[in-house]
Amino acid sequence: MTAKADSNKAQERAELQRGRILDAAQKCFIEHGFHAASMASIADTAGMSAGLIYRYFENKSAIILAIVDRQLQLLREDIRLSRRIDLAAEMTSNYGRACSADAKGMNAALLLEISAEATRDPQIAAALDRYDVTLRAALVDWLTRDPEAGGHGLPAAVSPDRALLLQCLFEGLKLRETREPQLDRQLLERALHYIVPLLVKA
Amino acid sequence: MTAKADSNKAQERAELQRGRILDAAQKCFIEHGFHAASMASIADTAGMSAGLIYRYFENKSAIILAIVDRQLQLLREDIRLSRRIDLAAEMTSNYGRACSADAKGMNAALLLEISAEATRDPQIAAALDRYDVTLRAALVDWLTRDPEAGGHGLPAAVSPDRALLLQCLFEGLKLRETREPQLDRQLLERALHYIVPLLVKA
Repeated sequence: MTAKADSNKAQERAELQRGRILDAAQKCFIEHGFHAASMASIADTAGMSAGLIYRYFENKSAIILAIVDRQLQLLREDIRLSRRIDLAAEMTSNYGRACSADAKGMNAALLLEISAEATRDPQIAAALDRYDVTLRAALVDWLTRDPEAGGHGLPAAVSPDRALLLQCLFEGLKLRETREPQLDRQLLERALHYIVPLLVKA
Repeated sequence: MTAKADSNKAQERAELQRGRILDAAQKCFIEHGFHAASMASIADTAGMSAGLIYRYFENKSAIILAIVDRQLQLLREDIRLSRRIDLAAEMTSNYGRACSADAKGMNAALLLEISAEATRDPQIAAALDRYDVTLRAALVDWLTRDPEAGGHGLPAAVSPDRALLLQCLFEGLKLRETREPQLDRQLLERALHYIVPLLVKA
């Protein structure tokens, strides 16, 4: 085996370890809250020694940053906005789905806690900003693009307003998820089928 | 002084003390986060002994419950929805306002943390539910009431959908506040002046 193959393998292993730590941390944060979860409980959940975890992440803030950046990575891979998706139906079926501790996606409670933490931690604020700027740009592009290219053909002057409103709606639903898990899905779907078309039409 | 006047005075004093503790707790929760704030730091901020605080509140959860109930009280006193208010302009000028630690109103970060906590603490979930049910009913009433009575005259079948959407919009803006304090207010006002009228019209 060459030295290069060795180093690739080591890097791959490190990536896997990092992923395992992030999964465990996400689980702990959801169960106990960001502040209540300790590095020790994360190590425990990951089945690693605390010492090993500290080799990858200096502290909990560093883990949160890595979780947000992983979400950004997933967003970049996954954002396939096209005119054909029924956004209202999709938002309804996503309601409450990511609340389980196993989901790869960002659980609603964790999203709220990380957002609250951004008011106190500038590094977290900057990481969330990278995420938000990427999402907002993708929404603006989707709204402005020609219908033949899978967009909605909105005037460029209007798209930023609508993208902001869509984002507020997504996020408002995340807050609702935590407070009203039993929300009537028919009510929700009816409401979204009223508002979403108004947000994407010229 | 009669015994009754004495007991009234004692009760008044207790109410004042409770209020002082809640103000101090709210300040600590905003500065450090709900989980990071300790009973000792709340006592310190209130200028009381920790022992005295425990005479009024068993633990932090009890304090959060009291804060939510105080918000509900404020909501009940303050909710004056009438057709004449420019809700879009009001929402724009409220954006980010309650983020200061001094405000009586619920700071956005604290709102998010309490909502996240509701996924773990059934008592907090129940208190938030009381608040939400009251707010939703006031919105439904406002939307359904006759225009002559300060309402919007929407059909009763439609009002619950619109009330839910308004609530998601309020809450989405709370989440935005924490992540995007510098949001362009003109963009926000333009966006809200597009969507709010569509939510209150038949």
